[in-house]
Amino acid sequence: RYGMTRELVLGLEVVLADGTVVTAMNKMLKNNTGYDLKQIFVGSEGTLGVITRAVLRLQPRPQSMCTAVCAVADYDGGVRLLRHAREALAGTLSAFEMMWPDFYELVTRNVRSLRPPLPYGFGAYVLIEALGSDQAADQARFEAMFSAALEQKLVADAVIAKSRSEAKALWAVRDASAEFPRIFWPHVKFDVSIPTADIGRFVATTKGSIRARWADAQTVTFGHIGDSNIHFEVKVGDGAQPDTEIAQIVYDGVRQWSGSISAEHGIGLLKRPYLAYTRTPAEIELMRRLKRVLDPLGIMNPGKVFETPATGAQK
Amino acid sequence: RYGMTRELVLGLEVVLADGTVVTAMNKMLKNNTGYDLKQIFVGSEGTLGVITRAVLRLQPRPQSMCTAVCAVADYDGGVRLLRHAREALAGTLSAFEMMWPDFYELVTRNVRSLRPPLPYGFGAYVLIEALGSDQAADQARFEAMFSAALEQKLVADAVIAKSRSEAKALWAVRDASAEFPRIFWPHVKFDVSIPTADIGRFVATTKGSIRARWADAQTVTFGHIGDSNIHFEVKVGDGAQPDTEIAQIVYDGVRQWSGSISAEHGIGLLKRPYLAYTRTPAEIELMRRLKRVLDPLGIMNPGKVFETPATGAQK
Repeated sequence: RYGMTRELVLGLEVVLADGTVVTAMNKMLKNNTGYDLKQIFVGSEGTLGVITRAVLRLQPRPQSMCTAVCAVADYDGGVRLLRHAREALAGTLSAFEMMWPDFYELVTRNVRSLRPPLPYGFGAYVLIEALGSDQAADQARFEAMFSAALEQKLVADAVIAKSRSEAKALWAVRDASAEFPRIFWPHVKFDVSIPTADIGRFVATTKGSIRARWADAQTVTFGHIGDSNIHFEVKVGDGAQPDTEIAQIVYDGVRQWSGSISAEHGIGLLKRPYLAYTRTPAEIELMRRLKRVLDPLGIMNPGKVFETPATGAQK
Repeated sequence: RYGMTRELVLGLEVVLADGTVVTAMNKMLKNNTGYDLKQIFVGSEGTLGVITRAVLRLQPRPQSMCTAVCAVADYDGGVRLLRHAREALAGTLSAFEMMWPDFYELVTRNVRSLRPPLPYGFGAYVLIEALGSDQAADQARFEAMFSAALEQKLVADAVIAKSRSEAKALWAVRDASAEFPRIFWPHVKFDVSIPTADIGRFVATTKGSIRARWADAQTVTFGHIGDSNIHFEVKVGDGAQPDTEIAQIVYDGVRQWSGSISAEHGIGLLKRPYLAYTRTPAEIELMRRLKRVLDPLGIMNPGKVFETPATGAQK
């Protein structure tokens, strides 16, 4: 609801590789005076400078919370529901967490404190939350949104929380991803983005490729599909995981669907070999040019994002 | 409500000075794979490359519109009302247009088709709009927001539109700024940002300085204060305006209040001499470094933003 973290950063102070302190502690929303320098440093993983101060935008604390879990026929039905919810909840939609059946069944069958809020067998489950200003009025609107969705057959079934504790119980299903180290271990995890309209097909074909390679492979799939972002985890047997081979299949799919190999977590070291699956050669060359001009000696978080450290000779 | 234009740009294709085509047509909200290159080009006024394609984020069309004009005691009262409205209208607030009495009286007295929706004499006037999903429910919430504001004495008086045509009549007051070439001419105009909490003091002291210099000076002041942005226009007599002297006073005030000399419209040529009023020397030097690395021959929209064109020798 509040946008990416980047959008909440108004100003920064950054120390560059040569010791220059760039003070850009802007406090205003609108400021179009030359290049928006802070944007270069946000998300650069420390490779262009050290961020020493930041100005962040705050929002008033919401006064109401409405929560539900519902079932949809399939992924594409979930996208239609997302469009409906965005329109009907005008500006208050704060979570649209899709849980594929592999996720939903795994957590509700293996985490003892959870009961499935809806029966098994649906194509996908979605946790929806809206944050607003007036519990009674917002709850009425939230329920009206679901009534219309049921009528239009966008939703097959739904459980709407009537209290904070019911809302907490619904969130517990989604948050059970924290139990994976216990109930789904060992596994290889991916945090990818795919254009929202294509996520369903990406997941289906990638799962197909993985099962074709390892008949006993298990997957769990869930994500913030309104942000284009899904988490996809794979488990092949109970021993050492064929990490590289799994990654190759998943990232091949990401490339094919023009997705991103890292939605939330950056590149670091582990995803470095796959950067070109997501960014064009011209983009990577431009990134390298920025790196060279800001850090010619390659001393800022060396080795992260790019394989080759810049050499001191370059300017 | 939907953020700055920058936040709605998901991807770009840019042609660099050396002919390289950088294709970064990202369609996803979350994509953290190296530097967010498009941010360098958004708002760079063509000085770093030519933008040839863009991917923009769309939003569903709102289904309801609520509009009002209200009166507040003074600027700070307007800021308190803004906070109240943001919280009460949770995510639907789409306009908070403050009109100082100089603006409000000028347009309602000089544009024949306008009648002042509220009496003269208040400290400031605000046009508020909310865009939502359900006219009846949203109107009830909008009116409840005003009832609470009247009760808490955040608002002195208010006119809430009951129809689209009433809403149009309220917007006509604000939009009468388009009549300035006829009713307030000649004048010198400014588009500045100041941290929202300080706008009232900036306006008062700047007007004081201008009146101290020219006893017959007139001003008009209005703006989107939720975005930190105001428009401030000055008229000294009926002949040629002392542009540079007026600009000096206004931009001195902007510098004193850590504001921005250009909220919406960029630097171009006219505001070039004042860039340092808003950006630190380290920021400007970093901008120049970016300009040099991306456009070493200085061929991209030369002379805009920076006074000195980069020379071909620099790399």
